[in-house]
Amino acid sequence: MKRLLALDWGTSSLRGAWMDTSGRVREERSFDRGILKVADGAFPLVFKACFGDWMNTDDALCLMSGMVGSRQGWLEAPYCACPAGFGELAAKLAWVEPGRVAIVPGLSCEHDGLPEARRLRRIPDVMRGEETQVFGALRLLGLREALVVLPGTHSKWVRVQAGRIESFSTFMTGEFFALLRQHSILSRTLPPGDGAFDAEAFEQGVTLALRSNSLLQTAFSARTLSLFDCLPGAALPSYLSGLLIGEELRGQTWQAKADVVIIGSEALTQRYQTALALRGVPAQRMGSEAGWAGLWAIAETL
Amino acid sequence: MKRLLALDWGTSSLRGAWMDTSGRVREERSFDRGILKVADGAFPLVFKACFGDWMNTDDALCLMSGMVGSRQGWLEAPYCACPAGFGELAAKLAWVEPGRVAIVPGLSCEHDGLPEARRLRRIPDVMRGEETQVFGALRLLGLREALVVLPGTHSKWVRVQAGRIESFSTFMTGEFFALLRQHSILSRTLPPGDGAFDAEAFEQGVTLALRSNSLLQTAFSARTLSLFDCLPGAALPSYLSGLLIGEELRGQTWQAKADVVIIGSEALTQRYQTALALRGVPAQRMGSEAGWAGLWAIAETL
Repeated sequence: MKRLLALDWGTSSLRGAWMDTSGRVREERSFDRGILKVADGAFPLVFKACFGDWMNTDDALCLMSGMVGSRQGWLEAPYCACPAGFGELAAKLAWVEPGRVAIVPGLSCEHDGLPEARRLRRIPDVMRGEETQVFGALRLLGLREALVVLPGTHSKWVRVQAGRIESFSTFMTGEFFALLRQHSILSRTLPPGDGAFDAEAFEQGVTLALRSNSLLQTAFSARTLSLFDCLPGAALPSYLSGLLIGEELRGQTWQAKADVVIIGSEALTQRYQTALALRGVPAQRMGSEAGWAGLWAIAETL
Repeated sequence: MKRLLALDWGTSSLRGAWMDTSGRVREERSFDRGILKVADGAFPLVFKACFGDWMNTDDALCLMSGMVGSRQGWLEAPYCACPAGFGELAAKLAWVEPGRVAIVPGLSCEHDGLPEARRLRRIPDVMRGEETQVFGALRLLGLREALVVLPGTHSKWVRVQAGRIESFSTFMTGEFFALLRQHSILSRTLPPGDGAFDAEAFEQGVTLALRSNSLLQTAFSARTLSLFDCLPGAALPSYLSGLLIGEELRGQTWQAKADVVIIGSEALTQRYQTALALRGVPAQRMGSEAGWAGLWAIAETL
């Protein structure tokens, strides 16, 4: 077994873990060098600048997942079509440098679209990076059935059956929050910083969204509640966050027998855990260890 | 009866109509001077520069509606609380120059919020300008029961019973479209200009949104359908517009006996008429004549 440099190279950030031959993380690094901040053709240079010292040994292997495998990334790695198991993922690596540096493929699936419309009979969906975290989490938790939620810019809801990813759905929750926060009329009502998290306002936002029909309407309430002094400005970012997460949860369905696992940052997974509890759904949380475990498991197959 | 300068002074534009003593529009002017482009205290100057020649007579009266009556406008005009009839609106003018220049009040109403939450028991909603168009349209069409839809940056759905505005709801449809178009990841997929309207893609967007749960999910399909070459780039703006308008329509309920009237620009009211037809709801359309008729009717009460 080689020593593994595990990389999560996404749209906005680059994170790496240096793992020893037993799979333990020895060191972690994080850089503000997401693929959008890397010039065309500059991926080898950035890679060397950030992790060259770790790769400076013959027995090093680098596996990376995330948007680095997209058309705008280092090398386009083809999608695996769902349902897809761990084995299919590990077998489809896109090698940047044979035997040394590879990119994990993303997953694609299809949703029912408009049966009567030729072009839109099926609606495709895609992920890059989350699949690795999901398989890592399943392994760490010893699960073969689960609903895995990965909140973020584009949140993913992943349905796992018999150890395989059956299908998943994307929600642009984090991106909508940022758009409303920074560019909408609400940006004039909300205070500039995020300030302290207001748990009550957050839960009220979730509850209102769960009972509503559309974010198009509930989002406006962040403005009017402030206009009429029903909510103080400092509570509005938490309230809006609740509206967005509640909107994401509203249409979800659950299978009683499947565990619910949330993977992501401490702050975000806590919010989703709270929101899920408001719908009566218990969930456990995981952090970056899921992604490292997924990459380690792939390395073990080589 | 005086001669009326009717103004629709909104967030992004300033439009005026010069009406003769019989209520006929003699001339219209439009300026790129919405209230956001007017410096604090500069309203009298802009008003004079744009319409001073029309007001240069003793028998001229100016009535204006829209965001000019907001806290960021010329003079804050108080809201009338719903249910509100035409008479209440006309009686609550905010006079900028007594007997000569006045602003029509906006309307407020309340929606059911969270009964268990002290601060959010009721959710306020507001409009400025649309109330005047609604009363003008009712008058022109001889209606006393109607559902009036005013599409735009913040679309309004207005329920009229016995000639009074009972309540209304706001949807941030136009603003969400602009946010997604200009600032989201979709801005990289969509072509720069709006191009030709693609009726098929628009109707497919509406239909998909009507069958969906949330824009957070359907919006991502504009990206993946392009990624997998299911929809050509040129069709995407129309498709996205359909997704947004379908989302706005999804949760609406109708009263069989009430006429549905759409007020707004030719292009936008046509899209809403098409979308409503997909839900089996016939609707008639009106343009700026509704607003001018509303201001004229108020002038007649003075």
